[in-house]
Amino acid sequence: MSTTGQIIRCKAAVCWEAGKPLVMEEVEVAPPQKHEVRIKILFTSLCHTDVYFWEAKGQTPLFPRIFGHEAGGIVESVGEGVTDLQPGDHVLPIFTGECGDCPHCHSEESNMCDLLRINTERGGMIHDGESRFSINGKPIHHFLGTSTFSEYTVVHSGQVAKINPEAPLDKVCIVSCGLSTGLGATLNVAKPKKGQSVAIFGLGAVGLAAAEGARIAGAVQQVIAEMTNGGVDRSVECTGSIQAMIQAFECVHDGWGVAVLVGVPSKDDAFKTHPMNLLNERTLKGTFFGNYKPKTDIPGVVEKYMNKELELEKFITHTVPFSEINKAFDYMLKGEGIRCIITMGA
Amino acid sequence: MSTTGQIIRCKAAVCWEAGKPLVMEEVEVAPPQKHEVRIKILFTSLCHTDVYFWEAKGQTPLFPRIFGHEAGGIVESVGEGVTDLQPGDHVLPIFTGECGDCPHCHSEESNMCDLLRINTERGGMIHDGESRFSINGKPIHHFLGTSTFSEYTVVHSGQVAKINPEAPLDKVCIVSCGLSTGLGATLNVAKPKKGQSVAIFGLGAVGLAAAEGARIAGAVQQVIAEMTNGGVDRSVECTGSIQAMIQAFECVHDGWGVAVLVGVPSKDDAFKTHPMNLLNERTLKGTFFGNYKPKTDIPGVVEKYMNKELELEKFITHTVPFSEINKAFDYMLKGEGIRCIITMGA
Ligand SMILES: [Zn+2]
Ligand SMILES: [Zn+2]
Ligand SMILES: [Zn+2]
Ligand SMILES: [Zn+2]
Repeated sequence: MSTTGQIIRCKAAVCWEAGKPLVMEEVEVAPPQKHEVRIKILFTSLCHTDVYFWEAKGQTPLFPRIFGHEAGGIVESVGEGVTDLQPGDHVLPIFTGECGDCPHCHSEESNMCDLLRINTERGGMIHDGESRFSINGKPIHHFLGTSTFSEYTVVHSGQVAKINPEAPLDKVCIVSCGLSTGLGATLNVAKPKKGQSVAIFGLGAVGLAAAEGARIAGAVQQVIAEMTNGGVDRSVECTGSIQAMIQAFECVHDGWGVAVLVGVPSKDDAFKTHPMNLLNERTLKGTFFGNYKPKTDIPGVVEKYMNKELELEKFITHTVPFSEINKAFDYMLKGEGIRCIITMGA
Repeated sequence: MSTTGQIIRCKAAVCWEAGKPLVMEEVEVAPPQKHEVRIKILFTSLCHTDVYFWEAKGQTPLFPRIFGHEAGGIVESVGEGVTDLQPGDHVLPIFTGECGDCPHCHSEESNMCDLLRINTERGGMIHDGESRFSINGKPIHHFLGTSTFSEYTVVHSGQVAKINPEAPLDKVCIVSCGLSTGLGATLNVAKPKKGQSVAIFGLGAVGLAAAEGARIAGAVQQVIAEMTNGGVDRSVECTGSIQAMIQAFECVHDGWGVAVLVGVPSKDDAFKTHPMNLLNERTLKGTFFGNYKPKTDIPGVVEKYMNKELELEKFITHTVPFSEINKAFDYMLKGEGIRCIITMGA
């Protein structure tokens, strides 16, 4: 019996209040509207960004809300005008999108789509501003347009990457966010050449993914304390600390050094350096989501895993059933492990 | 009668004291030593850097000194170990060099040679620390290893670019410094694509050369006051003002904008910006001498002129005979014109 066009009732982990444990609820998920896709989520993982908005310190609070943005699933049905996806497709929902039609999407250099760029303050869908989730008629806010802590979710088709159906979703779900952010910072932006040295600041999932990029590029990871010969060839800053950003820039070699900023700073931070550091032919650049275009490029990252070029297993330190999703929050808050996979069926 | 191996007596414009008019003197120019070349200068031009060190405000004064670093000439004789140049070669002496053998010279990305990188405080030759110029046995200091305000000068062979002998030296002499600095900032570092917008800060020789680069690249020069659509694609800062540097960075488009710093700032300046400006995929880079390697790349800039791709005539606003070299200083101090060519024979 097809669910297409029907409301689906399923389990979702709802956050009713900032910083409080998620509560497993039965939610109603409306059918996808124009340019939307309804996805059955099979695996999701927890990222710092979920925790940051769950804590909701210093932000406009938007509750109740369904968090989650790193996930893998299968398309259940598609809304009007969706031509590139169909039921049964294996997909990764992505927190930032690609409309294909704006100056950023037309640019080879940018992935910051004007229409679907990450928006942390939006609680409904772009099409009509409404939520597709409800409990007894009361709407539940979306998060990043993905809300993957639900057995089914509705996502704008521009935020859905269609991947190789052979790829194990319990592994490649982490490609949705932090892994690609770090990996792309090294491979697409820092672009070390074989044998060059790369200093990485930060040892979370993003920093380790940046290091994985250095390994794939055949570059040498270098400990900054041992720095010699005028500096490292490349640096990748994944902490968001302004001091680390400045250090990451100033530790690259004159003549050719490239520093890449990934970590998100505080609102009041100022990046400060003597301009001679730049004039001596150093480059400073920032990146967002590893400069990957979500729909165009992310399937290729999954292929890198399938070819055994990219390792994902080392990032996955925990697994919990969906019913124990709050354990994933505990692990992250205690700084234990890198990524915890949440198994929806279990 | 060959002058090889002999001391040459010729005219030079000597600066005896900071800020005082140059004095035309008869100097003795010693033969070139190991890895050195003696050049008959035919045309030279005046650059702000000459004036800056002539004024000698806040620097260690080094007088008497022979200034001059933009020039064209013909090799008169070569010293021991010079294999790539011979008498009769048409050459441009360059204020920064290329040893061919250090990590910078080996890097495709750098032109900041460890051995021959610009050194404003050196008054003698690298080989023995001595000057090749003297008047009645009293040594006269070199400037930037070039000292082209003399009918003959001695230059390290790593600072000598061999160019097409058909190239008119009275035009291509300006390729030695400011022209290449601005041109390369656009063509080699900002790299605008056809049709992209380029904002240029500064309207001296360097800024105009950066604009010439934009013209050659088929890019659109844009006036910042009319900026729309989220920013310009590229910017090139040629003033050295820290406010202009920050503005040049902040006016480039997110997603793909590249700002290039060329102008030399004051010692105490700090470049300051919010790191989100970088994280939104803007790039900030500095350049030195347009990222051109002096010996490898400068002959190609001369070829661009020979092919009529590059215009030089519009930069040349004045011409004076060598005997009136102090007029060139007056023009520059009054901000009149762009480049004044000084004709040595006249
Ligand atoms: Zn777009
Ligand atoms: Zn994330
Ligand atoms: Zn100059
Ligand atoms: Zn060198």
